Amino acid sequence: MKKLINHTDTVLAESLDGFAAAHADIVTLGAEYQFVRRRHTRPGKVALISGGGSGHEPLHTGFVGHGMLDAACPGQVFTSPTPNQMLAAAESVDTGAGVLFIVKNYSGDMMNFQMAAEMLDRDNATVIVNDDVAVENSTYTTGRRGVAGTLIVEKIVGAAAERGESLAALKALGDAVNKATASMGVALTSCTVPAAGKPTFQIGPDEMEMGVGIHGEPGRRRVKMTGADEIAAELTGAVLKDLQLRPGQPVILLVNGFGGTPTLELYVMVHAALKVLGAAGVKVVRHLTGSYVTSLEMAGCSITVTAVDPAQLALWDAPVHTAALRWGM
Amino acid sequence: MKKLINHTDTVLAESLDGFAAAHADIVTLGAEYQFVRRRHTRPGKVALISGGGSGHEPLHTGFVGHGMLDAACPGQVFTSPTPNQMLAAAESVDTGAGVLFIVKNYSGDMMNFQMAAEMLDRDNATVIVNDDVAVENSTYTTGRRGVAGTLIVEKIVGAAAERGESLAALKALGDAVNKATASMGVALTSCTVPAAGKPTFQIGPDEMEMGVGIHGEPGRRRVKMTGADEIAAELTGAVLKDLQLRPGQPVILLVNGFGGTPTLELYVMVHAALKVLGAAGVKVVRHLTGSYVTSLEMAGCSITVTAVDPAQLALWDAPVHTAALRWGM
Repeated sequence: MKKLINHTDTVLAESLDGFAAAHADIVTLGAEYQFVRRRHTRPGKVALISGGGSGHEPLHTGFVGHGMLDAACPGQVFTSPTPNQMLAAAESVDTGAGVLFIVKNYSGDMMNFQMAAEMLDRDNATVIVNDDVAVENSTYTTGRRGVAGTLIVEKIVGAAAERGESLAALKALGDAVNKATASMGVALTSCTVPAAGKPTFQIGPDEMEMGVGIHGEPGRRRVKMTGADEIAAELTGAVLKDLQLRPGQPVILLVNGFGGTPTLELYVMVHAALKVLGAAGVKVVRHLTGSYVTSLEMAGCSITVTAVDPAQLALWDAPVHTAALRWGM
Repeated sequence: MKKLINHTDTVLAESLDGFAAAHADIVTLGAEYQFVRRRHTRPGKVALISGGGSGHEPLHTGFVGHGMLDAACPGQVFTSPTPNQMLAAAESVDTGAGVLFIVKNYSGDMMNFQMAAEMLDRDNATVIVNDDVAVENSTYTTGRRGVAGTLIVEKIVGAAAERGESLAALKALGDAVNKATASMGVALTSCTVPAAGKPTFQIGPDEMEMGVGIHGEPGRRRVKMTGADEIAAELTGAVLKDLQLRPGQPVILLVNGFGGTPTLELYVMVHAALKVLGAAGVKVVRHLTGSYVTSLEMAGCSITVTAVDPAQLALWDAPVHTAALRWGM
């Protein structure tokens, strides 16, 4: 295992210290590395809290800040944070308007966030993200997995929270955006969890895992490598089949790298995905391309499509100021 | 070779098509993929043009837009663009105030940009970036290589150009920022150029290349892997030795991933670098952390330090709107 770390048991703490130092204008770090929170909160604004296993950076800590999350709870690599972390985060950032948890659908996260929600003596609600159309149920999941679409849910709901919308309205909006979002990914290589010290899975030099999860979980099938056009056709096709969009439907397209994919290749995938979306009559009105929801250094990518109405598009366009997403300010 | 591409001979064109589509609000693509230019130019503003081999994305195309470059000329992967590309770019974006070329110091780029400068029937000047302190002369270089510090030169000079400064002033500013900038990198793995189909260099499972170039060129020495603190101490130490800063000097710190490095690890390196800079009494006033000047999917990172005065810091903070760097707008 070759990694830029000191020890496997200090990698998360040192990374969070580095993150907090680099983005001290935006975030502060909670005691004992329980959470990353935005430096400034505003009374009357519903607090948005997410979190999950680390190793998917910039998700979620990189999305803490104006227009997106109020706090993120980082678990150890690919391991859910604890209910105590979520409670500490909620106590820190709730200003009285309530707390909305945004949770990726993995059994560990679901259990721990649910426990925190039950223990929390404040108004709260939960949006569950399950955008991955690759498989029903999975290694760590009952039902579909939550993957890169989480970013889109967090951005749109975050903008609405910034505008002062109520907890109930934000919960409904989050559910609606999740429902209008579908993703599927492919892996060319495995990743290596620092504490494990060896690749999560084995894959041949001419194979890819179609429908892979963001922890390297198995997808639909292990197949021989093909070209970008063919890969994009399968990923985008599965996403479109799930969403059943009308011709002319405006969508956001997110082509997301898993951590080890050159930007050069991500844009080849954009080009390939656009051909499929164009042929389907879907109208891409916004793009996001980059490695935003990663699996450490895994090579591969996912394609996410979110159908948006004009109000949701305006929320996507609204100012955001986080470590990893920033525009309009 | 596992890559998200269709054919090695179409990867660049398809990637540029995807890039231009995804960022159509910011850029347009010149005929025959000769250059990427910003959609809107302003009369009276000096045109900033850079370029170089592809495979380092988002450098340079991702830095075209308001507050940074007017055009970027992409060569084939790790191959200089041609003088014709630079001439076509200059004809396209010069509005009469002259052209400033920003060139990384590699023999091929230097020769071709110089040829373009001589052929160009417009006022022009050239800033040469040679921030890599690892080695004097190298595989493709006479003198030091230009690496991640190029981003900082392009951002600061770009902001000054936006403010309407003259060609002579911008040339002087670029030279000054380059002189105040030093970088050094380390590679844990090789990258694979698509057309070559095999790794650029071989490296053992417990080795790293200290002082590597951004094309995988040899650095100072091949050594056994050590911890992040030790690696950061060597990289940052070499940079500080070169810059000879006074205590309290304000600097920008760029921790740059080479394309295959998890963000989790980059922030471990930020944490490690800050200890060295703190011990040296240097004051980090701005951070940038991410994979901005890459070597395809190479694992590793570089550390760049730029000493800034208050005017240069204000230019760094000035609004920028490009595909890869965006703030203040």
